[in-house]
Amino acid sequence: METPSRDFPVVGMVGGGQLARMTHQAAIGLGQSLRVLAVSPDEPAPLVTPDVVAGGPDLASLRALAVGCDAVTFDHEGVPQEHLRALVADGVAVRPHPDALLHAQDKLVMRRRLAEMGLPVPAFAEITAPDQVADFAAEHGWPVVLKAARGGYDGRGVWFLRAADPELVRELLDAGTPLLVEEAVEMFRELAAQVARSPFGQAAAWPVVETVQEEGQCVEVLAPAPGLSEERALEAQGIALRIAHELDVTGLLAVELFETAGGLVINELAMRPHNSGHWTIEGARTSQFEQHLRAVLDYPLGTTTMTAPVVVMANVLGAEKTPEMTVDERIHHLFARFPQVKVHLYGKGERPLRKVGHVTVLGSDLGEVRRTAVLAAHWLSTAEWEDGWSVHTGTQGLGDRA
Amino acid sequence: METPSRDFPVVGMVGGGQLARMTHQAAIGLGQSLRVLAVSPDEPAPLVTPDVVAGGPDLASLRALAVGCDAVTFDHEGVPQEHLRALVADGVAVRPHPDALLHAQDKLVMRRRLAEMGLPVPAFAEITAPDQVADFAAEHGWPVVLKAARGGYDGRGVWFLRAADPELVRELLDAGTPLLVEEAVEMFRELAAQVARSPFGQAAAWPVVETVQEEGQCVEVLAPAPGLSEERALEAQGIALRIAHELDVTGLLAVELFETAGGLVINELAMRPHNSGHWTIEGARTSQFEQHLRAVLDYPLGTTTMTAPVVVMANVLGAEKTPEMTVDERIHHLFARFPQVKVHLYGKGERPLRKVGHVTVLGSDLGEVRRTAVLAAHWLSTAEWEDGWSVHTGTQGLGDRA
Repeated sequence: METPSRDFPVVGMVGGGQLARMTHQAAIGLGQSLRVLAVSPDEPAPLVTPDVVAGGPDLASLRALAVGCDAVTFDHEGVPQEHLRALVADGVAVRPHPDALLHAQDKLVMRRRLAEMGLPVPAFAEITAPDQVADFAAEHGWPVVLKAARGGYDGRGVWFLRAADPELVRELLDAGTPLLVEEAVEMFRELAAQVARSPFGQAAAWPVVETVQEEGQCVEVLAPAPGLSEERALEAQGIALRIAHELDVTGLLAVELFETAGGLVINELAMRPHNSGHWTIEGARTSQFEQHLRAVLDYPLGTTTMTAPVVVMANVLGAEKTPEMTVDERIHHLFARFPQVKVHLYGKGERPLRKVGHVTVLGSDLGEVRRTAVLAAHWLSTAEWEDGWSVHTGTQGLGDRA
Repeated sequence: METPSRDFPVVGMVGGGQLARMTHQAAIGLGQSLRVLAVSPDEPAPLVTPDVVAGGPDLASLRALAVGCDAVTFDHEGVPQEHLRALVADGVAVRPHPDALLHAQDKLVMRRRLAEMGLPVPAFAEITAPDQVADFAAEHGWPVVLKAARGGYDGRGVWFLRAADPELVRELLDAGTPLLVEEAVEMFRELAAQVARSPFGQAAAWPVVETVQEEGQCVEVLAPAPGLSEERALEAQGIALRIAHELDVTGLLAVELFETAGGLVINELAMRPHNSGHWTIEGARTSQFEQHLRAVLDYPLGTTTMTAPVVVMANVLGAEKTPEMTVDERIHHLFARFPQVKVHLYGKGERPLRKVGHVTVLGSDLGEVRRTAVLAAHWLSTAEWEDGWSVHTGTQGLGDRA
């Protein structure tokens, strides 16, 4: 009588962080259960999925992950190319393909390719000797941005230089860090254009968002990017769609952009679910996590329209000093004040500036939505209301200040 | 440096079906991981959560589930009262409390209590001998509805009688089935009013929905109930809130109602996430699954407003004959035709009329939204488009009929 349903596909994800955790959440709806490759059982994803392969991105662990998988994809870019090429040679559907992923792993490769395509990138140069930085600055002016071509994230691997610092450069080169230098782009703000693309070649774009950064780390995402002209939004989506197509990206692509007086300039690429797309869980008809699964499995893609006129996501970062109030108690207070705030906590331990969760708020008034999201995220981080609101009086600070 | 985050609460759920599966999905966002008590590792929830206690609702298994849980709650009502009372005596936070849950376990207890409260219920009587059915019918007329007081669901345990059937009644009584008889209520349609209530006493109601039944099983849910007057909607919500309050329900309460010429009549109660609330995953700011967790943990409750003017949920039932096309292939075709349909598949094997998933569609035109949901659910069940649409021509049947 009963037909067993073992015909649901299995996606394997390299990495067990919050992106894998939220991808598993989306996989459940599609009848699936995400398989993750995780170093520790305490990571965000293995805490919530039963299908865990223990290990890092070494070839043996990657091969163990891939057994029985319909597609293998990524929670982070830190996987050696040679291992990925070995998986491809094994016949594994690695998505995105290592040829594409290389552009999200190596900033120099990415810059060269995008420049060849005629896309807007900052002036850049490879650095193989300390004096090349000053040479570059002589042509393009100070300050300049020195970057590790590989391995940097969230502001790590990036140095803002106002003058030559040959010692730093020498130290990095001696440590084997591949380097490039870029002009420091004068910008109004940062944007992100996110698209998904399937092996079949179908692509779908979400509305372009503004990402608000502090100390090199994203703290807020405003969807859609406030005041962005339709022309500029279409240009940003067009850039992302063209990169996805020409690099043959499968799965998600996030293009981080600078908005400048001279137009858009491309900053970084990511080929996986991305912090700039967390707002889509509640804010779009199809979340980035569901869409990534659909794309890597070559399913037709889902509708990307927004569910509200304004959506704001704010990251919950570990505070300088972890509050004495437990996370659980902080959630109580947050929900009591803001029943409309959607909370996503990753099950991570808290440490300063670590991303431990995010909140999302939907509405129609940007000022109000943004204020609520920022207050909520700051409260969860610190157990302090930035506006002085007091639980005892329900007023902004009067209870304590009176 | 790092503060471990072992201060997220743990909720244990008795039962590993789709309700537990979708509750785990909601738990992930709150930083948690649902612990489930499941008979088999192939059930919908253990397929997707790592925290599984193997067993049925015997006391030893229930106690094993409860170790370290902040609250214990339910995916189904089939748990003996004496075991729940033993857990309460152990100090476990059983939510809802067995005193409340009894009204969702025993239809006779429920009918008596609601009648005492002066709420609208059909005429009913306990049946302890076969001739009592005819006695009841002599007073209230044929047909009558014979019900097992305990253990029935989805049309099971319900017999629609147009004439006396003493053999059936004798057989049931001899098998130890506690019975009641009710008048057959003439109704326009069925409604459901769903609320959540926390131990603190906070309650929140979703909009009242219409549930469309076929052969005693829910097949569609229309939110909000089309054409329902505000007065009647408030009356339905009021009934649910009053029951939740007077029975001291903690967690979710679904009240199934008949809409009749004479007003509302209460059919059944459920004290857990319920099929009539699946639409809230995408259709309301807070889903029934998140709200249930918030309620049983005594968190303040979330906003229940709808995310679109019209939301329709349709159940995916196993077909009479399981299609040769795999579920995976059916999903491909569904997404190609309807990129806006949200799919929830439970990882269950298919058998006739078994609930194996559901789809949800959001929009503003009830006719179109409902048509899409019904087409999508029927396609996933049968691999047939009810409107004759052909994938090869993109037209409704012309490709085959031309």
